[in-house]
Amino acid sequence: MTAPPLANLINELTKLPGVGGKSASRLAYHILKRPVAEAESLATAILEVKSKIFRCSICNNMTDVEPCAICDDPRRDASIICVVEEAFNIATIEQTRDFRGVFHVLLGALSPLKGVGPQDIDVHGLVRRVQSGNVREVIVATNPNVEGEATALYIAQQLRTLDVKTTRLAFGLPVGGDLEYADQVTMAKALEGRREI
Amino acid sequence: MTAPPLANLINELTKLPGVGGKSASRLAYHILKRPVAEAESLATAILEVKSKIFRCSICNNMTDVEPCAICDDPRRDASIICVVEEAFNIATIEQTRDFRGVFHVLLGALSPLKGVGPQDIDVHGLVRRVQSGNVREVIVATNPNVEGEATALYIAQQLRTLDVKTTRLAFGLPVGGDLEYADQVTMAKALEGRREI
Repeated sequence: MTAPPLANLINELTKLPGVGGKSASRLAYHILKRPVAEAESLATAILEVKSKIFRCSICNNMTDVEPCAICDDPRRDASIICVVEEAFNIATIEQTRDFRGVFHVLLGALSPLKGVGPQDIDVHGLVRRVQSGNVREVIVATNPNVEGEATALYIAQQLRTLDVKTTRLAFGLPVGGDLEYADQVTMAKALEGRREI
Repeated sequence: MTAPPLANLINELTKLPGVGGKSASRLAYHILKRPVAEAESLATAILEVKSKIFRCSICNNMTDVEPCAICDDPRRDASIICVVEEAFNIATIEQTRDFRGVFHVLLGALSPLKGVGPQDIDVHGLVRRVQSGNVREVIVATNPNVEGEATALYIAQQLRTLDVKTTRLAFGLPVGGDLEYADQVTMAKALEGRREI
């Protein structure tokens, strides 16, 4: 008995990740309640992101200029490349404000289970960048899970013959957490990576 | 360093209820990854809901036809009106498939704290419907909280002089829950409303 345009919007919203039927319904009624201008801004933003955003030809980051703002920034150190799985991982690293190098987005991680092999991720582009330029270090910032680890090992292997230092993000206790909540593997990694104080 | 169209979409998405910065970012990157057609369907659905949906002149339900599909359905019993605060509450009652009457949406609930008084909700329309037609019963299905209760009492008061039975949804234990999780007030209501078996 829900009016078709409303049912249609609810249906479209449930296609978004993490949005179930109840959330979709709440979002749809929210949009109904707000001014038309607000709905138009949202609809326009959705369309513009599809028409204006593409991948940087150098690093695969999502961008609306070629090359992307990070690759194009002369203040950034192009000799240090941080390798991430997805473009949205860049934001997480950027917000630390501690990294002044550039990025390389793999567009995935190796996963035999999901059928993702070396040819499906952009390690080739990374190797080419290392071969062609003055790259001193490649920091592998893939996810701290099985796929991310396998990908990190594969990248290290591919870069072994090249004159570049390959590093991996540190594993250990998350800051602000309680020791008792650390899982076994994290705890083992924290012990293994202990440093003198 | 996020590209402006992408930052703009993330910003628009955070205006939705229950969507914080991280969720908005995840949604935006999801939209980026999906085909253009899918983004267009979503954008169109947002715009159509604003252009095609309006309130039913009888019951205030959200509709794209006048009167709404429920008010217009000859199989529904127009002599029983279920009163809800918001149009989206109708779906919750409809999914029980137990109610074959019609609805009245108040468009809010009395709340002195939020400055919502009797003139801000549509009790007047309900009274008019009761006065003008063959209404036998008004089931007050406002929320089981302070505002909903105050609104229910106010409605009962307004209908007192009219020839209509006014009822309120039952309070008690939620089905499927554990007794130990029931709060004090719910437990007291469950005791008070106990029935012979």
